[in-house]
Amino acid sequence: MDYLELINNALEQYLPESGDIVSQAMKYSVRNGGKRIRPMLALEFCAACGSDPRKALPFACAVEMIHTYSLIHDDLPCMDDDDYRRGKPSCHKAYGEANALLAGDALLTLAFETAVKADLPAENIVRAVKELSYSAGILGMVGGQVLDLQNENKALTLKELEQIHNLKTGELIRVACVLGCIAAGADDEKIKAAEEYAKGVGLTFQIIDDILDVTSDAETLGKPIGSDAENQKTTYVSLLGIEKSEEVAAQLTEKAKAALEVFNEETDSLKELADKLQTRKK
Amino acid sequence: MDYLELINNALEQYLPESGDIVSQAMKYSVRNGGKRIRPMLALEFCAACGSDPRKALPFACAVEMIHTYSLIHDDLPCMDDDDYRRGKPSCHKAYGEANALLAGDALLTLAFETAVKADLPAENIVRAVKELSYSAGILGMVGGQVLDLQNENKALTLKELEQIHNLKTGELIRVACVLGCIAAGADDEKIKAAEEYAKGVGLTFQIIDDILDVTSDAETLGKPIGSDAENQKTTYVSLLGIEKSEEVAAQLTEKAKAALEVFNEETDSLKELADKLQTRKK
Repeated sequence: MDYLELINNALEQYLPESGDIVSQAMKYSVRNGGKRIRPMLALEFCAACGSDPRKALPFACAVEMIHTYSLIHDDLPCMDDDDYRRGKPSCHKAYGEANALLAGDALLTLAFETAVKADLPAENIVRAVKELSYSAGILGMVGGQVLDLQNENKALTLKELEQIHNLKTGELIRVACVLGCIAAGADDEKIKAAEEYAKGVGLTFQIIDDILDVTSDAETLGKPIGSDAENQKTTYVSLLGIEKSEEVAAQLTEKAKAALEVFNEETDSLKELADKLQTRKK
Repeated sequence: MDYLELINNALEQYLPESGDIVSQAMKYSVRNGGKRIRPMLALEFCAACGSDPRKALPFACAVEMIHTYSLIHDDLPCMDDDDYRRGKPSCHKAYGEANALLAGDALLTLAFETAVKADLPAENIVRAVKELSYSAGILGMVGGQVLDLQNENKALTLKELEQIHNLKTGELIRVACVLGCIAAGADDEKIKAAEEYAKGVGLTFQIIDDILDVTSDAETLGKPIGSDAENQKTTYVSLLGIEKSEEVAAQLTEKAKAALEVFNEETDSLKELADKLQTRKK
């Protein structure tokens, strides 16, 4: 099964059919998707728990919609004021601010509408909505954005830096893994292991981001480099240096892979994914 | 039972305890609540179906949170750019644009986190989330905002005007009534009747709004009058005149009250509420 194709097809199916400008803006941003790491994780964990990965598709798409809405709102002039996203005009640049705002709102709402479409026992769906709303909310992803805004231009400790990342990007990665397990009806031991894995790959992703901002070039990366230093941002590299950051990323990746032991099915692709995130060049 | 007190206490309980600025902004806007019409309707319908109205509290609060988030985002500079809301500085005026944006996002997310806290069978909760996400989304409330933006400065037909209101304000009123029934485990006949009632009071509310903008004064209304004419907005009054608008509101209110026949318990307070919305002076 080609998981990426499954995910992209499912997203298309859940997006609104209507042709109004906000529906267009929603589709524009969802289609400008990247690696679909979060929905991939949901499907992989569902399979690792011994279930048909397609069962996790509504949850997987819900997480991707929340990720997309957060990028649309993050790019708005009152937030990061970014004109580009993955090499294309950001949503508000293409559709105007009001429509981008509403597209984000509608995608966040659609995430929950999509999650409850899962063909699963109602108890599992309720649990999934609980996890999803927590991870996207003020104690999760939005909480991370708040911390990020509050700490702009401030020097951070490693602990503070980690907390921001764990919330701002880590929570959605965590919930993607957890929802994959919930879709499979997995027990708490597996859910806990999925969270361990998510924590490892989530932080690794962030550390590599920081490293690439120093060591890569704009062409390979598809975005300007050196922006962290320019903005005097505290990063893993500014706190630990490149070498030590690479070491930490390697350790976290090993820990993430080790957490996969409890799953009955093969977890090779989850291990590969962890390695790929650690060794990526863009 | 004092429903308003129940609702305000429940809202406080569901709001975040954290003291960060976005949590503060969320509380500021929720506490600057008005008549709490939507959560009231949820509790009233739950009682009308013969159930303990407190069972509907999580759903009722969820609808109020969605209503509040929509006001915060509506007031933003890229939308209506309103500096005041119910006589107080709007959320972005008090907390800044970025924090207001995030407060709205977090409240929308919290609505779903709150809804799934209901102490009800999982099937009922899933159905409620389905209704709630539909009504708040691109085919519901946000869809109404899109139509409203698209039709700015355009002359509308009565049908177009009604469609905008049915979506922009009507959908949340509808879902509040429906969720009250779902909390009570009511059958489809009652849910349909609740929708009939909601349609009547929702449109009446809007018609009276249009009338008061012409006939009231700023002091009574608590906001400037004559703004519709100034903005050349199509309203019930501009299309039908005051007298005919009042007639339509009276007919809709009668129809709404007639829809209440199917409920076993007394529905006096729902009838009173319909009358109050029709005869309100502010």
